[in-house]
Amino acid sequence: MTKVFLTGGTGFIGSNLRAFLSQSAFHVEILARPQANRAADTLGGVTKVHWYTGEYESVRSALAASKPDIVIHLATHFVGRHVSRDIAPMIQSNVLFGNHLLEGMAECGLKNYIDAGTFWQHFNGDAYNPAALYAATKQAFQDILRYYVEAAGIRAITLEFFETYGPLDTRPKILNLLIQKLRENAPMHLSPGFQELDFVHVLDVCRAFRLAMDLLSESGMRRFAVSSGNPVNLRELVRLLESVAEREGQFKFGTLQYREREIFQAKTPVPRLPGWNAQISLEAGIRELWMRNFDR
Amino acid sequence: MTKVFLTGGTGFIGSNLRAFLSQSAFHVEILARPQANRAADTLGGVTKVHWYTGEYESVRSALAASKPDIVIHLATHFVGRHVSRDIAPMIQSNVLFGNHLLEGMAECGLKNYIDAGTFWQHFNGDAYNPAALYAATKQAFQDILRYYVEAAGIRAITLEFFETYGPLDTRPKILNLLIQKLRENAPMHLSPGFQELDFVHVLDVCRAFRLAMDLLSESGMRRFAVSSGNPVNLRELVRLLESVAEREGQFKFGTLQYREREIFQAKTPVPRLPGWNAQISLEAGIRELWMRNFDR
Repeated sequence: MTKVFLTGGTGFIGSNLRAFLSQSAFHVEILARPQANRAADTLGGVTKVHWYTGEYESVRSALAASKPDIVIHLATHFVGRHVSRDIAPMIQSNVLFGNHLLEGMAECGLKNYIDAGTFWQHFNGDAYNPAALYAATKQAFQDILRYYVEAAGIRAITLEFFETYGPLDTRPKILNLLIQKLRENAPMHLSPGFQELDFVHVLDVCRAFRLAMDLLSESGMRRFAVSSGNPVNLRELVRLLESVAEREGQFKFGTLQYREREIFQAKTPVPRLPGWNAQISLEAGIRELWMRNFDR
Repeated sequence: MTKVFLTGGTGFIGSNLRAFLSQSAFHVEILARPQANRAADTLGGVTKVHWYTGEYESVRSALAASKPDIVIHLATHFVGRHVSRDIAPMIQSNVLFGNHLLEGMAECGLKNYIDAGTFWQHFNGDAYNPAALYAATKQAFQDILRYYVEAAGIRAITLEFFETYGPLDTRPKILNLLIQKLRENAPMHLSPGFQELDFVHVLDVCRAFRLAMDLLSESGMRRFAVSSGNPVNLRELVRLLESVAEREGQFKFGTLQYREREIFQAKTPVPRLPGWNAQISLEAGIRELWMRNFDR
């Protein structure tokens, strides 16, 4: 039975992935931070919870006890537009924690590693140009990863996403906000709305990770984009939502400005994950969210 | 009078640079960590000492009070071969501290920035391939810097060194160790000794920074190598030292192994700093160190 060791296992993607993997007969253990927002005993699809104290030793002993076949590192501290007090937690979560994880893997002789990146690392479609400090911290960590790939023989795959969505997503993401406002029939101020978004449903995200696990036999450090292939702009997204919901919302386009370094084209120079295609259309995914929304 | 704001001002290069700059009629203020190894009142060539508490606010208020024309960021935590407990201090010093510094510059509207990199970021002469985790943390920080260059219009120059040396260097570097062993006529175990080193004297280092200050008018992020152009291998270095000292030491080549990821050719794909040439030959620099050694 293949054992997967997951960080970020209490987050949106992590929660879905651990359920997905345990249903596919994988043994899943997670490494959680004490401030994780779900108690360990409510974690479905998890055999064992280890705790990260912030110290290296807590990571090393968890990996040594677990001896996983594959480590999937999803823990991240996302901030779309940072202020100064976000810097330290972003560096701790997005650089230091992952560095401890890789050092532990090297010390325990573990080789198979998967993590997640973002299209935001490719402002203007550049090889590297961060749309936000968050994206810079993700790129910074890739440089740390490179060291362990070269020096410790770790086989690494990074899957790169633009926007993920699906049931049980409690993050204040744009699609969730639009649905909430439409449901409440409340007005919502928006930018002009011509910026593109590329949504991938969380079940398709899980399938991408499952596929990446099978690609780890090759050595080195590889990066693949997980793109729906069908980006929509914010206006199109709202139209799709209104059509699914069969009602019109009070969406005030142009009453807000675009954010600094807004991404207008959801593009990346990174190759697409081979063998993967989105199976859930954005329309079907929005319908699911809208219906579920009414169930509450 | 041009005002320079220096981090790492109590270290080897920083101590020399602040003396060099104040003798050239620059106003120098430094940002020091409480654990800095020299008390503020013994700091020659410094007008004002600010203290970094680890918190962003200490950086911001220091920059706001100083309003420097140029920030030179030299503070670094160097570890040649790391163990797990080195990771957190390296990330704090080499990534987080610099990030706080750049955020402070952005908030205070400061644009001119210079820092230091290492040839170790170019194992095998690659664009990026870290010879050690230290080099990976330096590269990681360049990704953070890129964000501030793009988003805050910071003009950045990174000077890249292989090995620096000179008087008052208390670091346990190879040249210092060789001189000490030769002076004590003590045996010293060494690797086979065919790895190259590229030494630049600290006065030439200071001249490189002085030159870089004049290149900051151009926008963007630039990187220049500061190379003597005359690398020597370890055996040649020992022969040069023995010839200067007019005595033979007990240097046991081949009794130690090369370190992992040893750099055999001191090379970088980065262009050399235009207009700069080493003025102090390695022989002259070693003679100065050897003589001074006897003065003690």
